[in-house]
Formats: sequence, structure tokens, C-alpha cells
Amino acid sequence: MRHDSRQPDQLRPIKVERGYTKATPGSILISAGDTVVLCTASLDDSVPPWKKHEENPGGWVTAEYNMLPGSTSPRKKRRADGRSSEIQRLIGRSLRAVVDFDALGPRTITVDCDVLQADGGTRTLSITGGFLALLDTVLSIPDTCELAEGEIFDPKKVFSNSVAAVSVGVVNNQPVLDLDYIEDSTAGVDMNVVMTGSGDFVEVQGTAEGQIFDRGLLDAQLELATSGIQQLSAIQKECIGEVWPI
Amino acid sequence: MRHDSRQPDQLRPIKVERGYTKATPGSILISAGDTVVLCTASLDDSVPPWKKHEENPGGWVTAEYNMLPGSTSPRKKRRADGRSSEIQRLIGRSLRAVVDFDALGPRTITVDCDVLQADGGTRTLSITGGFLALLDTVLSIPDTCELAEGEIFDPKKVFSNSVAAVSVGVVNNQPVLDLDYIEDSTAGVDMNVVMTGSGDFVEVQGTAEGQIFDRGLLDAQLELATSGIQQLSAIQKECIGEVWPI
Amino acid sequence: MRHDSRQPDQLRPIKVERGYTKATPGSILISAGDTVVLCTASLDDSVPPWKKHEENPGGWVTAEYNMLPGSTSPRKKRRADGRSSEIQRLIGRSLRAVVDFDALGPRTITVDCDVLQADGGTRTLSITGGFLALLDTVLSIPDTCELAEGEIFDPKKVFSNSVAAVSVGVVNNQPVLDLDYIEDSTAGVDMNVVMTGSGDFVEVQGTAEGQIFDRGLLDAQLELATSGIQQLSAIQKECIGEVWPI
Amino acid sequence: MRHDSRQPDQLRPIKVERGYTKATPGSILISAGDTVVLCTASLDDSVPPWKKHEENPGGWVTAEYNMLPGSTSPRKKRRADGRSSEIQRLIGRSLRAVVDFDALGPRTITVDCDVLQADGGTRTLSITGGFLALLDTVLSIPDTCELAEGEIFDPKKVFSNSVAAVSVGVVNNQPVLDLDYIEDSTAGVDMNVVMTGSGDFVEVQGTAEGQIFDRGLLDAQLELATSGIQQLSAIQKECIGEVWPI
Amino acid sequence: MRHDSRQPDQLRPIKVERGYTKATPGSILISAGDTVVLCTASLDDSVPPWKKHEENPGGWVTAEYNMLPGSTSPRKKRRADGRSSEIQRLIGRSLRAVVDFDALGPRTITVDCDVLQADGGTRTLSITGGFLALLDTVLSIPDTCELAEGEIFDPKKVFSNSVAAVSVGVVNNQPVLDLDYIEDSTAGVDMNVVMTGSGDFVEVQGTAEGQIFDRGLLDAQLELATSGIQQLSAIQKECIGEVWPI
Amino acid sequence: MRHDSRQPDQLRPIKVERGYTKATPGSILISAGDTVVLCTASLDDSVPPWKKHEENPGGWVTAEYNMLPGSTSPRKKRRADGRSSEIQRLIGRSLRAVVDFDALGPRTITVDCDVLQADGGTRTLSITGGFLALLDTVLSIPDTCELAEGEIFDPKKVFSNSVAAVSVGVVNNQPVLDLDYIEDSTAGVDMNVVMTGSGDFVEVQGTAEGQIFDRGLLDAQLELATSGIQQLSAIQKECIGEVWPI
Repeated sequence: MRHDSRQPDQLRPIKVERGYTKATPGSILISAGDTVVLCTASLDDSVPPWKKHEENPGGWVTAEYNMLPGSTSPRKKRRADGRSSEIQRLIGRSLRAVVDFDALGPRTITVDCDVLQADGGTRTLSITGGFLALLDTVLSIPDTCELAEGEIFDPKKVFSNSVAAVSVGVVNNQPVLDLDYIEDSTAGVDMNVVMTGSGDFVEVQGTAEGQIFDRGLLDAQLELATSGIQQLSAIQKECIGEVWPI
Repeated sequence: MRHDSRQPDQLRPIKVERGYTKATPGSILISAGDTVVLCTASLDDSVPPWKKHEENPGGWVTAEYNMLPGSTSPRKKRRADGRSSEIQRLIGRSLRAVVDFDALGPRTITVDCDVLQADGGTRTLSITGGFLALLDTVLSIPDTCELAEGEIFDPKKVFSNSVAAVSVGVVNNQPVLDLDYIEDSTAGVDMNVVMTGSGDFVEVQGTAEGQIFDRGLLDAQLELATSGIQQLSAIQKECIGEVWPI
Repeated sequence: MRHDSRQPDQLRPIKVERGYTKATPGSILISAGDTVVLCTASLDDSVPPWKKHEENPGGWVTAEYNMLPGSTSPRKKRRADGRSSEIQRLIGRSLRAVVDFDALGPRTITVDCDVLQADGGTRTLSITGGFLALLDTVLSIPDTCELAEGEIFDPKKVFSNSVAAVSVGVVNNQPVLDLDYIEDSTAGVDMNVVMTGSGDFVEVQGTAEGQIFDRGLLDAQLELATSGIQQLSAIQKECIGEVWPI
Repeated sequence: MRHDSRQPDQLRPIKVERGYTKATPGSILISAGDTVVLCTASLDDSVPPWKKHEENPGGWVTAEYNMLPGSTSPRKKRRADGRSSEIQRLIGRSLRAVVDFDALGPRTITVDCDVLQADGGTRTLSITGGFLALLDTVLSIPDTCELAEGEIFDPKKVFSNSVAAVSVGVVNNQPVLDLDYIEDSTAGVDMNVVMTGSGDFVEVQGTAEGQIFDRGLLDAQLELATSGIQQLSAIQKECIGEVWPI
Repeated sequence: MRHDSRQPDQLRPIKVERGYTKATPGSILISAGDTVVLCTASLDDSVPPWKKHEENPGGWVTAEYNMLPGSTSPRKKRRADGRSSEIQRLIGRSLRAVVDFDALGPRTITVDCDVLQADGGTRTLSITGGFLALLDTVLSIPDTCELAEGEIFDPKKVFSNSVAAVSVGVVNNQPVLDLDYIEDSTAGVDMNVVMTGSGDFVEVQGTAEGQIFDRGLLDAQLELATSGIQQLSAIQKECIGEVWPI
Repeated sequence: MRHDSRQPDQLRPIKVERGYTKATPGSILISAGDTVVLCTASLDDSVPPWKKHEENPGGWVTAEYNMLPGSTSPRKKRRADGRSSEIQRLIGRSLRAVVDFDALGPRTITVDCDVLQADGGTRTLSITGGFLALLDTVLSIPDTCELAEGEIFDPKKVFSNSVAAVSVGVVNNQPVLDLDYIEDSTAGVDMNVVMTGSGDFVEVQGTAEGQIFDRGLLDAQLELATSGIQQLSAIQKECIGEVWPI
């Protein structure tokens, strides 16, 4: 039995609030239990410097991740650290895996994931919520926009798939889904899995946290993650509703 | 007439949500119209390094201010800048003006003001909300705590007063209260006023923004600010209710 | 009675040396009692990056403020800090308030205020001296220069006014003018006022330093500042002499 | 067929030179094909600051990773970047997974992995070589050393296992072992696997590089990695010879 | 003939103003022609961190060098650069070469050399003036101070010698003394020489600036430097007068 | 007698390995006794930003110097410091002294000197080895390259001379050549000399390290350096063989 009475394969309650703020076209407040992340996506009609010399540069998607100082106790100091840098690289890679940059056209979307409250699983929730903010931003681009190649912009062509993520781990030798902070801090193995809505892997990151693990434990965690991400993908689709373009 | 139909002396609608997050003893989500600030206050049972060598160092209160990248359009880059540094110095000074550090005892409270959405007046709203987060944190300290001098901690002795702030300015030659972004960007004079609940000044900062101003315009703005802060002080008191210690 | 026998409304002795160094067109060594600031103004025939895309960008004026390590005891470490950044923003705003950027033409003037000796009032003296360095630099521009619009450069059109500044405060419950370090460190209220030569306000910054203040004390300080700045404006005009263009 | 005629499950030629430099107790020059890494391990008889307040703090192992500017073409600028930070965190975690800190005693070992030439697989080769440098450093500690608990230091108790790493990936839809740069830059999936000498997982990091992957492809890569690491573990053991303590 | 009519072996006019500012015990404004440096020396009654663990740590002398932005045209940006760091290391080494740290006792003297106007030879003038500021600071230490060893502080024992510096170079194939900026920028060889008042070398730094040089040219420059430093040493001694302790 | 039985005028054994790595056209592993430096030279077909506005900008040569953390004991932290900056400026100046930038054409060569093991004399060995890496890089440029002026690139015209360097010093009052770390740390005078293959000076840097020195000691050291550099120049020439272009 888990400390909060969940089943090993049970997610925490997920809530999604679309359009939480107005300054950016995509703004998602997403929570899983007590973990709360504000994901906003800003649109910039230019491409990064390293793409400027390409003839038809296509677009770019990048991400930033940050924990607010008051999101955790003791207070987290404001400063870039290796952990944040590593997490935002993961978020960016995961989102880019389902985007067609030619179809996006010469624009940059920056997805900011700011953790308002941290209770485990902030990086995976940032991916799940960040995808929705990215999607809303793409949907906000007028379909009269012209692409570099002379074709008309079509949001349906931008995404090859949806993407979501969840953490799994081994706590007391038991594989479990969606660890909160208490579980995370006692887990022997910690794993983050990113998958598409159609069930393929985008990223698998498993780490021994005091307990090396054999193939059986690895497989059991991958099963839990697959089932959890199926549920998260359904929640994403329901949140967007009819305009879901994928 | 103002662009949003307010009277010159009318505040935007103020909302305060107490205990918005759980990780810190004080957590206030405050909004004035479309400006939204999350104020959290963290408690640390030590004093700053430069106070460590004092015999009875008393406590300390400090503040940090930050705008989330997605709080504004175009997106604001994540980095410390002169403006943020200046604002957080103002917030810290304003809060410290009403705190008795001996009564607080040897602890440091850090008030973090993170702007989730920026539509003008973020620094003054940070002071008004930050005071509430600070107050809740002081109220969370058990009254069995002993101070350095052997006296018992009493939250009523920590605060000599409450503090709140508001912006005023001159728009189209008309002094107005609580400017939003549209007004702020066309104002000829921009002024931030910090006052106690009992009506004294803590800080007055008036700046010519393209329009130098005579004594008459200065006085008119100070009147508006005084009236606005009276209303904000009442809202603060109502928010905390019976345990209001001042 | 003040510790140095001055009257409450009396300035410290002011000395101005014009053309103190030769490397820059404006170079003013200004002192108020034991506070000494070297103000130099450098001319650059380009505009800041953020103005480069404007068609007729006009000019720009910016300021930097720094205390030499040996200007104070104990020695001040060489490093940018929040206080310096805040002060140089104030100096820059104050100087820009009286400059017409179109009349200046596409050039940038940087006013450097380096404090050689600090005995209170360094930021206000930097404004008073910095204006003179700026003025001399503008006067050094040949009047055969053409502006973007095809008009001829005229230094008389660059300045709408002169600008000077002084500190006031409340020491032992008595409002006083032009505080030195000893007074500054015991003042209950600290205020910096920037005004034009014609007597209008450019900036008002009053801060409670341990003593909140009512409207009466605020007004008394504003009176002192107004009188002090009148004297400083006269000294500025006398220093420049016949070529004074305003 | 691979571009360098290797079989899909074939490692590049591995060379290990023990004691390459003399300034540190562990110094390993390791190469896999044209990838060359110098791994040195330095011993410091103190513990990190964050462990100093523990009563019996035990030891610590940390790692740093850096590519020399001339290790690649075009030249890599000297500066810390997110990629390096992420890689050195991986190396540190991997080495710590097999170390008993109480048995190590209150000392810190820093393993520096400096890439002299980069042709793919630098992070995994750093782990494989870094373990040997770490091992040699532990072997250099005199066995007369006393631990905090009064027990005598025994290098055999420090390591619960050996650790090695290899990259795998999917190139032209074919899972392959130990990618060089040419393969790495065209791979659809890129995976780094860290395992112990006894065949358990320490870290699994798989990333879609333009190609999402299903469970079958994931499993095939894990098979290749397992076989590759068995060979690397044997090479490690042979390199150290009779004093191998595990 | 030199462009300013000096003989090859002639110094520029040297002026020294002792006690230019009051905040530090040593404060020297020194000029050589149009090069002007303010040298202040601050006294701190502690030793650097790396000396704290020594039983009788003795004292320390360190130097910092900086050019004010307005000291040169075009304006020099405020920021630490390699050149400044190299120069302040040279100044520090040169001053330390004549100081007995045991006789100084456990205190740190920081000599700040801030260039107010730069016309060549700023680093050597900083050494010549910095020595005077250091000397005045040592003379300000009360002779009742006790040293770590129980002996009484005696300024006469602190200095084994005086130190001064000058630049020499080869301009138009002619060795010349004390180059100004115009000569410096066309010199084929640039050399800085630091010597004691008794005529021994402390530092010799000769650099080919477009012209490699043979032994004859090197010797000719060393002769010029020796003669120049004799004059500078005499000026130093005259400036301090009867209390000269060496 | 020296501690390692060398004569006062005897170099340590010099070894040079050409083409040590393949990623850069010049790659030299050079050692003098236990000091080992890897010198690589990278070619970039552009000129530095500050040369971009010149019509026929010619080329540029720059150098970077770094000690690997494990090159010394105790471990050296990875970070830029004043010493490294000063050394790489010396290396760059020395190499540039023998290069004709017009003959090089509009390209930048960066010479990286990474110290793998430090036992004294790292900066001078970096110059001696760095020149060879630079030379090999110039030799790698196809002679069909056209220069800005329409002339054909000719490596023979790029170098006016070869350059090499050595340290000398005074140990136990005896001038000695090519100090190792043990000698260096007890030397009273430390001197680095850079000369061309034809015997002229490029740079002379002599520093009193606790012992001021008269002209006689200076001359004796210069003799030793001259003889040492003759030998190093011969080794350089032999290493390159028939294609030696000077």
C-alpha cells in the first residue's frame, strides 16, 4: 500500500486549467496532486541565430524550466543550476520530437515551465502541460499565414503526434507510478518516461538511486509508464476538445 | 474618462487568495485587474552572515522580485536586471519599515514576489501582497518560541504597523490612481507610494516620464495615493480577519 | 545646530573645476564639502543597438556611477552591486529628462560619475556635476553637424532645461539640507530631489530610514530641496558662463 | 554493413594506458577508436561542505567532464555549457552507484574526464575509464588509514561492484553498438547505458533523435548494450590485474 | 628629436600630491605629463583567508589597477579584462618585493591605482605612486602596535628598500625613456622596468611590438631605465621628507 | 649540483610527438621532463570581429592556455584565473611576433595549449610546442588558396622566423636553465625568455621572487636562455624536417 493509499499503477489527480493567464497565446496551469506547474508558450516571429543563414530555416521550439523559490521547503535559491539546465533540455527535446519545423514556419516558440509548487514529478508534468501550451500557441497562429515555401500554414501539419510524460520508480522493491516527493526521496530507482499519444517512446531515463536494477524491474516500470501515459494523453485530448489537431 | 471607464481615484478590482500554495507558511496570490503576483514568505531559523557576530542579532526580512517570462508580451528573458534589483530593494525596505527585529528574534524571512501576469503596478502590488505573506509567516511561528533575551515570542510585538502600496501618475495631464499597463506607458509622471495602515509615508518615488511636474501635480498625486492605500489597508485587514495582530 | 555648524537650510561649500581631464570633451571635478566626484562625458557617434532600427533614431544619454575603492573607509570592493545600478539609473533618467534626442542627433553620450571621495550625497552631486559634463560635451559638437532630418545641429535646441539635485532628510526630527555622511547615517528619513533650473520636479525619492513620516515632514523637506537646488542651478550657470545655452 | 566495416554488435578497438601522468594517484588514458579521454582522479582528505556537519560523514565521489577545444572540429569554445554539466552529473552518479561511502572514509575523490579527441561515445568512455582512475586512487590509500568508526580502511569494502558504459543506437533502422561520430550524427535513436560488472543497470538514457521508437527497438538496443558492457568489464579487470578488489 | 621635444633620456614632468583624499591613510595623486593616477592604500586589520591558518601569518600587500572609463578616448568600458588583471599582478609583486611581512604584522594593505587620465606609462606610474601610498599607510600605523611575536611595530623595519618603475622603448630605432601614448603606439619594443631605490632589478618586462630586438638594444633600454628610476626614487624621497624610513 | 644532477646550462629531455590527435591540422604533444603540454591549432576561415571592417584584414593568431585539473597536486580547480589569462596573452604575442598577417590571409588560427602534467616551465614549453602546431596548421593550408590581394598563398611567406622559449632563474644564487617545479619553488629570481630561431629577443620577463637582482645576475641568465633556445630551435627544425619553411 502506498503512503497516500494509491494503487501502484494509479496516477495522482490531474487538473488542467487552460488560458490561466492572457499575456501568451498558450497558458496552462497543470497540477498532479500537490505539484503545480504554470506552462506558458510565447511566440516570436523569428528563428534562432544559428538558423538565420539557412534558406528555408523552418521554425524552432525551445523550453525553459524553473522552480519558484517558494515552491519548496527549505526555500530554493534563484539561480541557474545543472539540474534545471538538464531538465529544460529534456523538455525541449521531448516537445521537438513531435513537431514538424517546416510546417511550423520561420517562428520560435518558447515554452516556459515555472513550478509553483513542487511535490515530485515536476519535469514530467512540465512536459505534459508544456505540450498543451505549445499546442494552443500553434492553434493561435492565423491559418492565413504563409510559409517560406509559399504553402499556407496548417496547424494539423505541425504535429506528428502528441507527447506526455510520467515518472515511475521502485519504492520498497515495488514498482510504482507517478511518485510524489515522499516516495521519490526513498525510491531505489527513479525513472522518467516520455511517450507519444500513439504509444511510442520519446525518451527513457532510468537511474539507480541506491539500488541497481535488473531487466525485470526495468520492464515492470516501463509497463506502468505506458499505462500512465495513455491516461495522460486522454486527459490532454479532452482538455483541448474538438480543435485537437492530431 | 479612463480607457477602462474607471474614475481617476478608482482602484482596479483587488482579489486576494490566502494559502495559495502549501510549501511556505505564507502564500498569497494577489491580483489587481490583470496584474497577478504570487507572494510567498519562507522562514529560516538563522540570521544573515553580516549579523552573525552580533550578540543579540534579532531577525531580518528580505525580499526578491521576479517577473515570469510568460507574464508579459513580448516574452521577458530570465535574468537579473537593474530594474528587478531596484524593485526588490524597494519591497524589502518597505516591509522592514514596520518590523521590530528584536521582537522577531534570530530568524530570516524571505518574501518572494513572482509576477505571474504583468499589467502595470507589479511592484506596489508585490508590497501589498508581500506584507500579507510576511504576516502569515510570522503568525505561523509558535508562541512558545523563546527569543535571544529570554522573552517569549509574541507576533503582536513584531509589527509596529501594516504596510501597503499603490501607483499614481499623470495621464493626459490628469492625476490618476492605480495605472494599468496602457496608462503606465503613456503617463507623463509615474509615482509609487508606500504608506502604513495609519497613513504615514514609508516611501515616495516620483519620476518624470517625459513631463516635469510642479508642486500642484505632486500634491494631487499624493492625495490619490493616500486614499487608495486606505482602501488597500482595509482589504488587507479583512483578508486576515480576527488574528490581525496590529 | 548641525554637527558642522551649518544652518538647516545651508549647503556645504560647492567647488567645480571644469575641464579637469582632457580625454573627454566634458570633464567636471565637483565637490560638496568632502564629497568629490569626477564626472566625464564621452561622445560616441552611434546610437544604442535597440535604436538602430528606427529611421530617425535621434540620440541617447546614459550614465554610469561608481565609487572608487579608496573613496570610503572601510574600503569598498570593486564590483557592480544593486545600489550602484539603482543610482546610475536615477542619474541617467534625470539627465535625459531635459534632453531633446532629435535635436541631439544620432549620437550617444555616456556620463561617467566616479566618486573619488564619499561623504554623503554622492548620487545628487553626480547629477549636478554630470549635467555640466553633458553640457560641455554637447557644446563641443561642431555646429556644422547635420542631423538626420537635414537640419543643422544647434546646442541650444538640445536642452529644454538644466537639471540639478540635492539630498534632504530628517535628523533629530529636524529637516535639513545636503546631509553629509554623519548626518546621513543617523537620519530618520532620507530624500533625494532632482529639479530643473526653472523649479519643476524631475524625481522625488523619499525613504523612511527607521522613521515613517507624515505629510508635514514631507512638505518641509521639499521646501529645503527647492531652495538648495536654486542655489546649485545658479552655480551651474556661473560655471559655464556666457555660452550657457538654456 | 557499418561504414567502418564493424558488425552491429562490435565494439571499436579499446586501449587503456594506466598511470599515464604522475600528479594524481589514478591516471588512465583510454581510447575507443579515435575517441581519447584522459581520466585522472584526485584525492582530497576532506569532505564536501554540505557533509561537514554530519558526525561520521563518510566520503564522496564527484566527477567533472570537459572537451578540450582541439578535440573536435570546428574548435569547441572553452566554457561550461548545459551539455557538459549534464554529462558530468551522469558520470558522478554512475561512479557513486558502486561506492560505499562509509568504507571510503572522510575523503573526496574528484574524477576528471578530459576529452583529448572526440569521435562519439565520450561520456560512456569517460565512465569506463573514470572507474579505473577512481579504483587506482582508492588502491593508493594506505591500508593503515583509520576510518571514522575506528575500523581500518579496506579497499575491497569500498566497491560493491565495477561499472562501465557504452552507447547504442538505431542507424538506418538497425540497432548498433558503440557509435562513432559519423553514426551518431545520423542515428534516429541514441542511447547510453551504464551497467555493473555483474550485469545490472545503473543508468538507462534513450532519446529519440528524429525517430520515435517502440518497445522492440528498445529491447534490441538493451541486448547490444549488455553484451558490449560485458566485454568492457573484462577489459577493466584485465587492466588492473591481480589487485582487482571486487 | 621626440615629438614633444624631450631628450631620449628625459622623463616627463612628474607631480605628486600627498593626502589628496582623506578616507584612506595613504592617498597620492601622481602625474607624469598627462598621465594621472590616484593611488590610495587601505588598511585592514586581518590577513587574507589563505594565511589564516598560519601561526604567525605576518601581513600582506595587494594591489588593484583600473582605468576610469573617461580616462581615455574612445571611452573604456567598465569591466575586468586580462590586461588589468596582468597589470595589477605586476604592481602587487613589485610592492611586495620590498616589504617584510613579519615586520608589517597581521594586517592587509590594499593599494588601489585608479587611472584618471591615460597618456602612456600608467602601470609604471601606478607602481611609483602606489609605493608612496603604501608607505604613508605604514607610517600611519601607531608605533605602539604589538606584533604577533611580541615585538613592537616599527615602520623602519617594514621596508627593505623603496621601489619605482618606468617604461622604456624603441621608437624609430631610437631607445627612449618614459613613452607617452603617441610614442607607445608606434614603438617597436615596449619595456617596463621596476627597480629599487638602491638600483637593483625587481621586474624586467620587454616585449617585441612588431620589432624583434638584439642584445644591444636591450642593454641600451636598461641603461635608460636605470637612470630614469634614479630620478623617480629621488622624487619619492623628497615627497615624503624627513619621515622617510628607508 | 642540481637536485636532478643536471648541469646549470642543461635542458631537461625534450620529446615532441607530431600529429598526436587528428581533429586539428596542427597537434603537438611536447614534453620537457615531466612537464607535458598538448598543443593543438585550429583553423577558422574568418577574421576576428574587430578586423571585419578592414578592407584587406589579413589574418590573426591567438592562443589559449589551460592546466587540466589533474595536471598538478593538489588538484587545480577549473576556472579562468589571472595567471592563465596572463600566460595566454604571452603565448599569443610571442607567436604573432613571427607571423606576417597579410601573407596568412583572412583566417584565424587558435593555438590551444592544454597542460596535461605540470612540473615547471609550462608557459615556455607551450610557446615552443605551440609554434610547431601553428606551423603545421599553416602548412595544411592548400597552396592554391587565394589571398585578398589576388596573390597565391605561400606558407614560406607567413613566417619571418621561428620562435621558442625557455625559463631561467637563480637557485641558491646560481643561475640555472629550464627549472623544474622543485627549483622553481625555491628560485630567488624567475625569468621567461622568448627568442627567435635567429637569436633575437621577442619577450623578456624577469621577476624577483624574494631576491632582487643586479645587472650581473640578469646578464648571466640571458646567456643561459640564449644557449637553451638555440637547442630548442634545432629540435623544432628537426621535428618538422624537410618542409621547414623558414
